[in-house]
Amino acid sequence: VRSRSIVLRRRPNGLPVTDDFELVEAQLPALGDGAFLARLLSIGPDAGVVSRLREGANYRAGIAIGEVIGSNGVAEVIATRNQDVEVGRLLYGPFGWREHEIRESVDGLFDVDPARPLTAPLGLLGLHGLTAYVGLLEIAKPRPGETVVVSAAAGAVGLIVGQLAKIHGCRVVGITGGPEKARRVVQEFGLDACVDYRAAEFPAQLSELCPEGVDIYFDNVGGDIQDAVVPLFNSFGRFVICGRIALTRLTNMELDVGRRDYNTVLVKELRKEGFLVYSHLHRLREAQEHLWRWHSEGRLELPESIVEGFERLPEAFVGMLAGENIGRRIVHIADPEHR
Amino acid sequence: VRSRSIVLRRRPNGLPVTDDFELVEAQLPALGDGAFLARLLSIGPDAGVVSRLREGANYRAGIAIGEVIGSNGVAEVIATRNQDVEVGRLLYGPFGWREHEIRESVDGLFDVDPARPLTAPLGLLGLHGLTAYVGLLEIAKPRPGETVVVSAAAGAVGLIVGQLAKIHGCRVVGITGGPEKARRVVQEFGLDACVDYRAAEFPAQLSELCPEGVDIYFDNVGGDIQDAVVPLFNSFGRFVICGRIALTRLTNMELDVGRRDYNTVLVKELRKEGFLVYSHLHRLREAQEHLWRWHSEGRLELPESIVEGFERLPEAFVGMLAGENIGRRIVHIADPEHR
Repeated sequence: VRSRSIVLRRRPNGLPVTDDFELVEAQLPALGDGAFLARLLSIGPDAGVVSRLREGANYRAGIAIGEVIGSNGVAEVIATRNQDVEVGRLLYGPFGWREHEIRESVDGLFDVDPARPLTAPLGLLGLHGLTAYVGLLEIAKPRPGETVVVSAAAGAVGLIVGQLAKIHGCRVVGITGGPEKARRVVQEFGLDACVDYRAAEFPAQLSELCPEGVDIYFDNVGGDIQDAVVPLFNSFGRFVICGRIALTRLTNMELDVGRRDYNTVLVKELRKEGFLVYSHLHRLREAQEHLWRWHSEGRLELPESIVEGFERLPEAFVGMLAGENIGRRIVHIADPEHR
Repeated sequence: VRSRSIVLRRRPNGLPVTDDFELVEAQLPALGDGAFLARLLSIGPDAGVVSRLREGANYRAGIAIGEVIGSNGVAEVIATRNQDVEVGRLLYGPFGWREHEIRESVDGLFDVDPARPLTAPLGLLGLHGLTAYVGLLEIAKPRPGETVVVSAAAGAVGLIVGQLAKIHGCRVVGITGGPEKARRVVQEFGLDACVDYRAAEFPAQLSELCPEGVDIYFDNVGGDIQDAVVPLFNSFGRFVICGRIALTRLTNMELDVGRRDYNTVLVKELRKEGFLVYSHLHRLREAQEHLWRWHSEGRLELPESIVEGFERLPEAFVGMLAGENIGRRIVHIADPEHR
């Protein structure tokens, strides 16, 4: 079997471009005893890859020149010499950007429920869903009638946060880049409003859309945007720090960007809390059950943006970093053979 | 009865000096029907007065030229024409910087337990004790073996926080201004260590004194000091924002000083929370019972620094702002007549 993969051709100069990647093809080796062959069905490139492409502080977790890129993917076992892993088994977790991958164990992988959409583990039923679920419901703790602002509202996490906040009776105002994405967030995902942070009148618009102030700010980006949100906080507001997309755009990942909110945190008695989804993996099943139920009831749309074809992974990744899509960008590679 | 009071003579230029205040004497008016005469026994000048002396944004809560300064005090009722308020009753709460004050009601005042030190309501058993109690035990939630860092460790709140953290089994490192205060905090109040933030090697000293990192930072000051603390945080650390003494030193109280900790709050999954003691007044009695018990057991020293004589209030206040004393500065005026 010949199989393609995508490797790092050179280190990006700033944000990655498609020419930083290279499609290579090779013969797969024969399966050794105890190994199994997984065929990738879909891969979800994520922003976390950016820092791993860089040399420097993160180098040990980084990707060397000529090495295969990695992201979460969904795969089907199509051949096996491992008695614990049967053909047809569906798995998701970290995979290379490969059409096929040989593994010796399912450690670090999770089973996929074939009764649900096979892409769901890469978004709503995976780490993005868990991030939104834990960050909003466990850390921010929304109450009906409160106003929730979410940044990167058209992103994979943001779209789930926004919908979860609606389900919990909040007024939800998104922040995103560009008027078209703002429009779609409202029309397709039911947020009350969404503003374009690139607009000159952004702070005034945000303030107008939050006439009763802000109770929760779910921040996926870091950087300057919070300057427009912090002054709107009501007393006892919650500021959840979930991500730092803005920081991935910087070359120096060590830069500890901070904002002038000390006084506000004190006088408004705010709670500002950072969290990493990896500390909450034990709640994945609980999150999946709730999220799937809300989806089944028609209250929670899958936030997916599917691109067709393995070879388009670099293009899909670069476009996602540029903010061109809405929701979780997923590259569909193949359908299961043994389903 | 002639009685003295202290009024604002002119607005301070920067930090207050004693010449900004004036001692005036006047005949007390006769008690009207329903009024009572309280004689001040002690007054605790506090840093919050500083912003009220300034013109500008806080003006409505501010003090006009010629107006009497206000702080918390303990007073004894020495004459009454109010049938609900008997002579000999001991009260504490907001009073003017006066030897005597005429009131028509006890609204906003609390009764003082005569079996306990009469200065205690101005410190350990008052708002300072409640601040330390709520901020440390309720918001920071220390666990035995954790490392707690407290700034303004020799201050009225800081000395209680440090001792409470010791009672709860923590390693406690204070931060204060000057080697003499640092020495006394350790020797007289039992903290494990205390560093002088004015020392050139302060960040390195702090780091050395926290070999297992920092789990809780109880910040009473704001400003630059946190730059030495934030890099030492362990995952799931708690950063309690209780005060902003550093900010009272600035002329522009609107300045929203912030620090570069965004990335750290995210990757260390910190919780940073501001609180105002006024939101927790309903827990005063509970706090008093616990604090008094620990004091009675010899585990919690009263953090008091007594100055004798009403006329020395401005001097005591100015000295306190300069950081010259340790603990709660209290001006003793008189002993009760009817005790």
